[in-house]
Amino acid sequence: MKERDSGAEMHSWATDLFPICRSLTGQGVRETLDYLSGLMSGMKIVNVPSGTKVLDWTVPQEWLIRDAYVADSDGRRLIDFQKSNLHVVGYSEPVDMMVTREELDAHLHSLPDQPSAIPYVTSYYRRTWGFCLADEERINLGSGPFHVVVDSELFDGNLTYGEVVIPGESEDEVLLSTYVCHPSMANNELSGPVVAAALVRWLTSLDRRRYTYRVVFIPETIGSIAYLANHLDHLRARTVAGWVLTCIGDERAYSYLPSRHGQTLADRVSLKALDERGHEYRRYSYLERGSDERQWCSPGADLPVASLMRSKYGEFPEYHTSLDDLTLVTASGLEGGLGMMIDVLTLLEANKTWRAVHVGEPQLGPRGLYPNTSIKGSGMAVRDMVNVLAYADGTLDVIGLSEACEAPTSEIVKHATKLAEAGLLVATD
Amino acid sequence: MKERDSGAEMHSWATDLFPICRSLTGQGVRETLDYLSGLMSGMKIVNVPSGTKVLDWTVPQEWLIRDAYVADSDGRRLIDFQKSNLHVVGYSEPVDMMVTREELDAHLHSLPDQPSAIPYVTSYYRRTWGFCLADEERINLGSGPFHVVVDSELFDGNLTYGEVVIPGESEDEVLLSTYVCHPSMANNELSGPVVAAALVRWLTSLDRRRYTYRVVFIPETIGSIAYLANHLDHLRARTVAGWVLTCIGDERAYSYLPSRHGQTLADRVSLKALDERGHEYRRYSYLERGSDERQWCSPGADLPVASLMRSKYGEFPEYHTSLDDLTLVTASGLEGGLGMMIDVLTLLEANKTWRAVHVGEPQLGPRGLYPNTSIKGSGMAVRDMVNVLAYADGTLDVIGLSEACEAPTSEIVKHATKLAEAGLLVATD
Amino acid sequence: MKERDSGAEMHSWATDLFPICRSLTGQGVRETLDYLSGLMSGMKIVNVPSGTKVLDWTVPQEWLIRDAYVADSDGRRLIDFQKSNLHVVGYSEPVDMMVTREELDAHLHSLPDQPSAIPYVTSYYRRTWGFCLADEERINLGSGPFHVVVDSELFDGNLTYGEVVIPGESEDEVLLSTYVCHPSMANNELSGPVVAAALVRWLTSLDRRRYTYRVVFIPETIGSIAYLANHLDHLRARTVAGWVLTCIGDERAYSYLPSRHGQTLADRVSLKALDERGHEYRRYSYLERGSDERQWCSPGADLPVASLMRSKYGEFPEYHTSLDDLTLVTASGLEGGLGMMIDVLTLLEANKTWRAVHVGEPQLGPRGLYPNTSIKGSGMAVRDMVNVLAYADGTLDVIGLSEACEAPTSEIVKHATKLAEAGLLVATD
Repeated sequence: MKERDSGAEMHSWATDLFPICRSLTGQGVRETLDYLSGLMSGMKIVNVPSGTKVLDWTVPQEWLIRDAYVADSDGRRLIDFQKSNLHVVGYSEPVDMMVTREELDAHLHSLPDQPSAIPYVTSYYRRTWGFCLADEERINLGSGPFHVVVDSELFDGNLTYGEVVIPGESEDEVLLSTYVCHPSMANNELSGPVVAAALVRWLTSLDRRRYTYRVVFIPETIGSIAYLANHLDHLRARTVAGWVLTCIGDERAYSYLPSRHGQTLADRVSLKALDERGHEYRRYSYLERGSDERQWCSPGADLPVASLMRSKYGEFPEYHTSLDDLTLVTASGLEGGLGMMIDVLTLLEANKTWRAVHVGEPQLGPRGLYPNTSIKGSGMAVRDMVNVLAYADGTLDVIGLSEACEAPTSEIVKHATKLAEAGLLVATD
Repeated sequence: MKERDSGAEMHSWATDLFPICRSLTGQGVRETLDYLSGLMSGMKIVNVPSGTKVLDWTVPQEWLIRDAYVADSDGRRLIDFQKSNLHVVGYSEPVDMMVTREELDAHLHSLPDQPSAIPYVTSYYRRTWGFCLADEERINLGSGPFHVVVDSELFDGNLTYGEVVIPGESEDEVLLSTYVCHPSMANNELSGPVVAAALVRWLTSLDRRRYTYRVVFIPETIGSIAYLANHLDHLRARTVAGWVLTCIGDERAYSYLPSRHGQTLADRVSLKALDERGHEYRRYSYLERGSDERQWCSPGADLPVASLMRSKYGEFPEYHTSLDDLTLVTASGLEGGLGMMIDVLTLLEANKTWRAVHVGEPQLGPRGLYPNTSIKGSGMAVRDMVNVLAYADGTLDVIGLSEACEAPTSEIVKHATKLAEAGLLVATD
Repeated sequence: MKERDSGAEMHSWATDLFPICRSLTGQGVRETLDYLSGLMSGMKIVNVPSGTKVLDWTVPQEWLIRDAYVADSDGRRLIDFQKSNLHVVGYSEPVDMMVTREELDAHLHSLPDQPSAIPYVTSYYRRTWGFCLADEERINLGSGPFHVVVDSELFDGNLTYGEVVIPGESEDEVLLSTYVCHPSMANNELSGPVVAAALVRWLTSLDRRRYTYRVVFIPETIGSIAYLANHLDHLRARTVAGWVLTCIGDERAYSYLPSRHGQTLADRVSLKALDERGHEYRRYSYLERGSDERQWCSPGADLPVASLMRSKYGEFPEYHTSLDDLTLVTASGLEGGLGMMIDVLTLLEANKTWRAVHVGEPQLGPRGLYPNTSIKGSGMAVRDMVNVLAYADGTLDVIGLSEACEAPTSEIVKHATKLAEAGLLVATD
């Protein structure tokens, strides 16, 4: 097994990807996927044509943005897409005209409470155009007139996503989902794909994998809907657990958001692994959901998918603004996010259900598993091991055994492995 | 839909019914049912002959009481049935004789702790006679001799009850049960039938009813036993929920008493509606039962019947005495009782189980159900609606959705109705 | 029914049995079983030959110990098996040689923290020899040389156990298990067999027994394994509840240790009976197990067996030393242990599941079960009885009815018996 990628490594990938102008569709998504596919082997790039019906939705037109600005009467650019791709409202239709200040204001977005932040705004499903800017710049725009230009195109093209399937011993699958549709933002965008890429590299390097892993890099919402539309029966039949990877690169918090009813294997493994890591973490309700779990966990899909994050979307002040940048997301933050996911997947892989082979306690002494001389206290040294044997009745997985035996899952796994090698336990799954 | 009856209206009915001398059987019950049937359409009056075997019981003889008194040697009436029908023990056999004070005392009932109250006493199943009086009058009766007269008859007649069935869209039924067997008492008698009558009028006025309603006006215990004997299979097959209406007209409290195990739809709906009304209410145990739920919820009947009351029988000092009168039961008290029942039945009617039609979130924008421009916070306005969609997996009724979505049932119903109209939800029941 | 045996009686049996040198196998076990079989009728003595495969184990050779000592160069015995059979390590192989102090020390066991106590040590499955002594004597042994003699034999013989089956009305069985394999110790040995013997005598004296009782007197661990090996299908099919009787004769505590998941009938009856006895008791976890429940409750055996003790093994300082003697175990302590077991088995016998015969409340008055005149409060006297009727729906046993009716099990049994005699209740099991 190779070492996991460092936080610095992941941060450098995010730095490379940061300037790209991503949206639901288009060149930015494809450039991002090209970069990511260079980090791993086996990524399949899939195009879904505009107009394709996917569940209740239709794949939208592709958006191409070349330039956009608001200039004063002297041609001086007051708001300039070339400086930040957040300045233009996502999916803005082309425009080239002179407007008054009042007309312009109807198309401007800024945040009076965060005067230095450019907000992130989109209008995917209603045709319009608009600009976003820091409120402190907006008040200095002057009275106009203004020349507004959006050099964009909306045309029938494709929605593009990437998919990697890493085979394991079982056809049962683990779904990892992250998104590639936000422009220059770091926690609520790039942290997800770069941690997912590092996870793919770590998973691929493992000597053995119990489960098959399906990792998807998709535009949020329409991407998961399109993916569900094409893989519903497969996903429902095979997925034993899944996670949405988002906002997983800052240093502030660790966060867990459950699946719809919060009772799936993904939930149990997440909570147990987080409890055992020893870091504080915040536990959200499914009512606070907001990413692709909305589709994976929807009625009829019912996939066992939880979300693991550092600071959750909507809960940190920089969220959906230009302040969500690569000073918020750090090497250390990414390393913590990757570490959490590796701990979770390590537990998932080890979380077998064990059953004792023999009725009655087996003879441990001759197998070198028990002290031969009985004196007060001599049994304590092997207490966890005999407890695993005592509770291995085929109804408890490692997490259940950990609770029954009041011992960490790592202890349970260590003893169960030793006992299985001695022919005393078998896994029933 | 017509307005519900006012408390004053219900109080006027109770005033009309108060003087009638009701008992398990006989003329008083029939007069009461005649009056009530004038308030609604479709009441069926049913007679069950004395001697009929009903479950473990036998319908008793009919009791006719014309007059009863205790007079002194001058013929002056010291205790007089004409002044209060509580003065004679219910089902007293005829008597006409001279007795000593000592002989009389063996047949007198009074309450030393409530010296001004005439107690209510019956002896349905053991033949005797007796008089009830205020303890403060008892001590002044003198030394006798006394002339005791009970001008009554016990003869083979009928047990009489009334029944109204109000059809709904479903053959599934709601059972409402109240009793008409106590003489001049107000909370523990007339509040039940008058609120039940107003409920029948309200239910009849509804544009549509999901359920069929079966409302029975019966003598307590023997009436519900006779009714069960004749309708057991029907009630067991059809009843989805039911309530006993008793002691529902004073102003002091709101009270809930569960079904046998407290887990039926009637219990869930009662508790949720009471919690949402915002009034304090008392929650009793089934161990504190005391009315016809003893039969409806008995093993073998197992009907899903709870009791909703204002001050529960046995819990207010005027209970089963002449002090339980029309100053204790008020227009406002009755209005509160009716309001509680209407809230409960309104929730029951709306308490459908919803299932999303589409896998994945449906597209709300084009249906006018979602803001088209996405900016921080824009989703909050429709949060309850999307939560209903997110949890509508066919396992949760409105009460369950209310708990999952942490929103009032009225919000859930509003959104579910809107979503169903848009073709996005279907009811599975 | 005869009186139960007194604590003094049980203590005298323990006094008789104390000097015998018991071990897993051999003459001491047989002498002990002979004595116990004299206290009861029907004990069957069973021999399992050395070398017999039992589950994962093999029955060991029989150990015969005639004498053992450590003497100084003058032939003076410094450690002498004749003074206490704890002085020799159980299953010591024969030896007769001169050793240095250093060589001797490698074979000595003492407890520096309990300098006056001889520890109890065995080495059943690894051939060695050894001596145990008080630490305060060890320091005075001198420098040697020493003559060590163990006059023992290890040879193919038998493992011996005793078994009594007391038939009842049902073929369903209760398993009582106690062990006879420790030398001169009182709480952690003799308290179990003597209380078990008194229980057999009490059970045999009962006019009727609902259940069949299977009482086994076995060497710990290998004995229960051998017993399981020969009776697995029978025990699994028939056993409704069982108890391990151990450490049940001192005066300090009452203790309960659950079955593997703690949800069996044995657990429910134990807890209810202990709660109702009013004595404080300690509630252990299955993680603190240590006797034959390790076999009875093992995966694949899954017998519903709990442990009831006074001071639990491992929890009192005299445990597994010469201090665990007949001053620690007292007549009063044994009487408390027997009383606990009789209370538990009395509840188990009475713990039927009841179902009302009639739909609706039956008529109690004519059966002499209810007051005929109704006046405020007259129903309270029969409240527990009508509650039993109200909840007797065939889903609740006496323990369940006790919880539903908020009344002691003795009240439930009293009323249920009366109601059954009146033809109003039937037992469904």
